[in-house]
Amino acid sequence: MFRPEIKVLDCTIRDGGLANDSHFTLETVRAVYKACCDAHVDYVELGYRNSKKMFSPDEFGRWRFCDEEDLRAATEGIDPQGTRIAVMQDAHKASADDLLPKSESVVDMVRVATYVKDIDKAIAIENAARAKGYETTINVMSISVETDWELDPALEQIQNETQVKACYVVDSFGALYSEQVDYFVEKYRRILKGKEVGVHMHNNQQLAFANTIEGIIKGANFLDGTIYGLGRAAGNCPMELLLGFLKNPKFDIRPILDCVAHAIMPLQGEIDWGYRVPHMITGILNQHPRAAMAILKSPGRDGFRAFYDKMLELVE
Amino acid sequence: MFRPEIKVLDCTIRDGGLANDSHFTLETVRAVYKACCDAHVDYVELGYRNSKKMFSPDEFGRWRFCDEEDLRAATEGIDPQGTRIAVMQDAHKASADDLLPKSESVVDMVRVATYVKDIDKAIAIENAARAKGYETTINVMSISVETDWELDPALEQIQNETQVKACYVVDSFGALYSEQVDYFVEKYRRILKGKEVGVHMHNNQQLAFANTIEGIIKGANFLDGTIYGLGRAAGNCPMELLLGFLKNPKFDIRPILDCVAHAIMPLQGEIDWGYRVPHMITGILNQHPRAAMAILKSPGRDGFRAFYDKMLELVE
Repeated sequence: MFRPEIKVLDCTIRDGGLANDSHFTLETVRAVYKACCDAHVDYVELGYRNSKKMFSPDEFGRWRFCDEEDLRAATEGIDPQGTRIAVMQDAHKASADDLLPKSESVVDMVRVATYVKDIDKAIAIENAARAKGYETTINVMSISVETDWELDPALEQIQNETQVKACYVVDSFGALYSEQVDYFVEKYRRILKGKEVGVHMHNNQQLAFANTIEGIIKGANFLDGTIYGLGRAAGNCPMELLLGFLKNPKFDIRPILDCVAHAIMPLQGEIDWGYRVPHMITGILNQHPRAAMAILKSPGRDGFRAFYDKMLELVE
Repeated sequence: MFRPEIKVLDCTIRDGGLANDSHFTLETVRAVYKACCDAHVDYVELGYRNSKKMFSPDEFGRWRFCDEEDLRAATEGIDPQGTRIAVMQDAHKASADDLLPKSESVVDMVRVATYVKDIDKAIAIENAARAKGYETTINVMSISVETDWELDPALEQIQNETQVKACYVVDSFGALYSEQVDYFVEKYRRILKGKEVGVHMHNNQQLAFANTIEGIIKGANFLDGTIYGLGRAAGNCPMELLLGFLKNPKFDIRPILDCVAHAIMPLQGEIDWGYRVPHMITGILNQHPRAAMAILKSPGRDGFRAFYDKMLELVE
């Protein structure tokens, strides 16, 4: 028996873009979009619509900006079969001015990613996006280092000042265990009435899929995944595992398996993602993944003990 | 606050031996043993003591048999610091006659692996091993395909006819979700009075660590892990994650990190283990990993859809 309220969102290109500065080929983006449509994933997020004042188009690929013409090139000729298109805006690095009215855009949903400290910026963008006709979510990043006395009022603001479809628990550091997932999802559900709770998990401790299931058990209905787990650092909840678990017969895992083989595994030579010891270390110590990503680019890849001791200094 | 009853067992060499026919070098086995001793892991399982009538020594390495002289070579000169040595016997492929009296052996614990159908053989070996002075466990394999009407009486036999320290839930197929872990651990605890429950998880769905945590939450106190997850097919609960999670200050993750870098990662060229799509498929369909291991050795590694459809025929 499945829960019809559950919506699955693929963010392979968006979160994966944090691992390659959003430099995906058009062919890869079309392959991911088509696979998600054929699998009947509810939403597919094709990148960020962030500000060109904050990110140089010389350095970052086009999926950091998701210009309408690029989104059209990525999607035209592919039957959406009900799959809707999302883009993400970073509250502190994007502008609602970059959103066209919904009637002129292929985008259906705008997801606003924010730290608690930027909640007012996030709400301003959400309000503007709603006014332009989009569905919206607010995704609270780095949840594992937020304090209750700052998070709770932020959630109350989201409850009172927005019309988001969902508000997300985002485990940016891959630090949560199941008990903490319970804690946050229950808190969100208590404060956010009439809005759905979403979960976006990272795989530093091989818990992204397990924590997504835990979120489902506690009532989260918006679930993020990426194909073969592609995403920043250790990556995300693998879409193929999520679809293998969910019981809604509308989902078809096969197009995702094809996409793994033909579009995602070929990227393994150029993008480094997945379970690595430095990512595991930042996960268990509840630290930002940037330090682990840096050490993996440097030559001494096996200085795990030294990296552990260095990270430990940050928490002691 | 930690639970002092929790015992951690490393089975890198034993379960990893299913991926390389137990052909580890002495140097690798010594490195794993030393890392576990230095990390204060409670038990380290150095292989099988299976019958040379069932496995040819021409085909299988010495860690399939764990002759006393090989165990001595693997451990001599290394300070155990409290770490105890285990070997595994397969109920249907081993003989208690191959066990010396405990006083003549470096082995501390004999773990008997069994299918439910072989429970009488397992109990006979357990009884003999106990009589020779060893600690014992019984590990019930392939738990995800056992029926309650066969499993429950087997557990009652273990309760009434053995003196095992622990009886294990073994998810050989990597098919369990957290709710099934709850179900089995609770069942074991209900039937097995005065004996501990153990969990041995496989990682086909990236749930080995999460399911081990779930076991802990439900009261399992014997926990299996392997360094960097090395083990058959998708591998096991990674020891480094388990030690990162457990709160007992006696554990030290650092020697395990060193072992990952210097002894286990170098094996990646010769042994294939970890999360792979075919392993994921057998996990979600609750099938034996052998089919996935076979397809990964054959040339068409990316025929994931075809493999999925073929496996699906077995369950429909």
